[in-house]
Amino acid sequence: MAVSLEEAQNVVLSLARVMPTEKVPLTMSYGRVLGSTLFADRDFPPFNRSPLDGYALIAADVVSATPEQPVILQQVDNVPAGTVSTVAVKPGTACRIMTGAPIPAGATGVIRLEDTKTIDNQVYVLDGRGAAKNICLKGEEIAAGEELIAAGAKIGFGAMGMLAMYGAAEPYVYRQPSVALLSTGSELVPVNQPLAPGKIRNSNSYMICGQIIEAGATPVLLGSVPDEREAIVAGLQRAEDCDVVITTGGASVGDKDLIGGVFQSMGVKILFTRVEMKPGMPVVAGVKDGKLFLGLSGNPSAASIAFEQIARPLLLKMGGSKIWYRPRIQARLAAPFKKSTGAQRFVWAKWWQEGGQMLVAPSVMQGNGMLKSAIAANSLICIPANSPPLAVGAEVSVMLLIDSD
Amino acid sequence: MAVSLEEAQNVVLSLARVMPTEKVPLTMSYGRVLGSTLFADRDFPPFNRSPLDGYALIAADVVSATPEQPVILQQVDNVPAGTVSTVAVKPGTACRIMTGAPIPAGATGVIRLEDTKTIDNQVYVLDGRGAAKNICLKGEEIAAGEELIAAGAKIGFGAMGMLAMYGAAEPYVYRQPSVALLSTGSELVPVNQPLAPGKIRNSNSYMICGQIIEAGATPVLLGSVPDEREAIVAGLQRAEDCDVVITTGGASVGDKDLIGGVFQSMGVKILFTRVEMKPGMPVVAGVKDGKLFLGLSGNPSAASIAFEQIARPLLLKMGGSKIWYRPRIQARLAAPFKKSTGAQRFVWAKWWQEGGQMLVAPSVMQGNGMLKSAIAANSLICIPANSPPLAVGAEVSVMLLIDSD
Repeated sequence: MAVSLEEAQNVVLSLARVMPTEKVPLTMSYGRVLGSTLFADRDFPPFNRSPLDGYALIAADVVSATPEQPVILQQVDNVPAGTVSTVAVKPGTACRIMTGAPIPAGATGVIRLEDTKTIDNQVYVLDGRGAAKNICLKGEEIAAGEELIAAGAKIGFGAMGMLAMYGAAEPYVYRQPSVALLSTGSELVPVNQPLAPGKIRNSNSYMICGQIIEAGATPVLLGSVPDEREAIVAGLQRAEDCDVVITTGGASVGDKDLIGGVFQSMGVKILFTRVEMKPGMPVVAGVKDGKLFLGLSGNPSAASIAFEQIARPLLLKMGGSKIWYRPRIQARLAAPFKKSTGAQRFVWAKWWQEGGQMLVAPSVMQGNGMLKSAIAANSLICIPANSPPLAVGAEVSVMLLIDSD
Repeated sequence: MAVSLEEAQNVVLSLARVMPTEKVPLTMSYGRVLGSTLFADRDFPPFNRSPLDGYALIAADVVSATPEQPVILQQVDNVPAGTVSTVAVKPGTACRIMTGAPIPAGATGVIRLEDTKTIDNQVYVLDGRGAAKNICLKGEEIAAGEELIAAGAKIGFGAMGMLAMYGAAEPYVYRQPSVALLSTGSELVPVNQPLAPGKIRNSNSYMICGQIIEAGATPVLLGSVPDEREAIVAGLQRAEDCDVVITTGGASVGDKDLIGGVFQSMGVKILFTRVEMKPGMPVVAGVKDGKLFLGLSGNPSAASIAFEQIARPLLLKMGGSKIWYRPRIQARLAAPFKKSTGAQRFVWAKWWQEGGQMLVAPSVMQGNGMLKSAIAANSLICIPANSPPLAVGAEVSVMLLIDSD
């Protein structure tokens, strides 16, 4: 059952179940996805306040003040931040005020300290211009009832400050989907074991582990098992409590490509077995009781691209995000791409700006290792199906490896 | 002691002490900074291997094979992945081989399964072209001795795979600097407390907490204290075990701007007290026994920008990173910036591409809240000192809020 990438994404996303929400301490909320929209329960600032240290007064009293002809006012109170003055400002009087303190009743302006001189209780105002502007008005930043952060937004430092400002000491966030990850392959040894002849280490589990974390989900590493039906079934039993199951290896059509059969024997309904893209064609996708199973290739290039294109959008949607795909830009090739392309192709790449132009180059040349390419990459070049080899200067679509915002 | 931003950065970075390294389990290494350069201790692949399921054979035996005139070979062994064949391939023979399995002795090519037919032990090769290309050569991806990941690199999914491939089950990473964070201000109430008249919640601690985490460091929140010398000193005593101390509030020149004095009373040598940038001018920087103290403004705009421009590079350097500043691009203003600029200025902004041009706009209009602007931003417009108001289409430098790579 071969499908286009778009079909594969649509099928998988249509089955994604959004996780429930949970409360976390605000300090632990960085990078999580907000679970309920934050509305302003009051204005901000919550009262008229002073933006500077100076004197609150009646603006009309001091319009004529100059260093030569200062206006002299009587100081009637002193309001540090956090304190409310009980004395009203009347014509001819002024109240000492600190940054952030509420404007006292009666005052219509603030003069900064540097434009005054104080002798005993007499305030000499040396420059009275702009007094009325020196008030931050109640609600000038935020009006009561305003929507401040929509559910589904990833919480950054600005959102943390805003949540604090509105008293969300324990905001609701979406639970992070847990992803069971099993590598299959008789050639694999665990990362902490010595290599034997014919063996390689299980690097896919750790590569995909990183991709799962980047997608805001929680990896549950089940290690590696040989290409044997019983071993795979036993390995997957430990996946029962997880929200998504991902395997690598055995997803193609060889003697030892057992994943499709294993999924079916577990009662998983197969959705598709092949996606029209390179690398990453072998993908066995299935669903059982609403839980998604993705069998990726054992080839690291294919597994990483299939994860990026299919599993990442799934995990973002499950994790409550509203945008599931990377941002894209158009850029010009700074190095040729010499392969012609049948199925649509993704190439690890690096983009930069030069002379006002956005450029992009495959991150390392052909024949080099996939992991090296991925380490050096900050983007993926997306080459449409049926493209000829591309020369330097050709315009291509580039998927940036950052969050959409 | 006013300094330029560049001077402030240089002074602070020159005093940065790089953290020691520690071991972490590979699964916990995502996003950490690699503490020791990874070199390849052997080739990868570690042996010649098959990229596909098929038959290993002597390529010269089958060059003439066609569906009409197949070449018939004798199957002598079957090598699944992870297994080494003990039988050498001789002229007229072939060995069944699986993806990833070592090429048997004597074989010089592999023919994929789809181009063969097997009857009993006889392998009918129907198409013999390209057999010699179907071998992944030992070391073709990575040569023994190669530098794979330099110390100081942030560990992403590709690096996790590479570390696994080379057996780094517990890689060394730089310890994350711990940052004590104390907010000062008599108007502040803790986030979980009700507001009283004249009070606002302590949002700076949580905003900066997010910025500390984004910079790869560990926040240690000390809460808020009133603008009183004794309270600030007492609050900072709990900062003793931390690698950096950051405060907000009291960094300017008013009656209640106590931070400089408190730092000095603690034996902190003051480095500078003011940085020529907007927002973020009031910054009291000091050092004691090699530990850096940064007193930021209590104004959220000023505190967040001063953190971004001075504290973030410091924390990146302390955390072992080799690149301390954000990447920049040039873009054109999609909305005017109407203020003329004395000191150099940073403006929260959003960049995008449109019609092949990179555009940028201040993330919200003037007068709106700083936190709203920061939440909507993916970049900072950097406006040089002494700039006039800027019209739509003006070219500006834009700092992208992503890691450099």
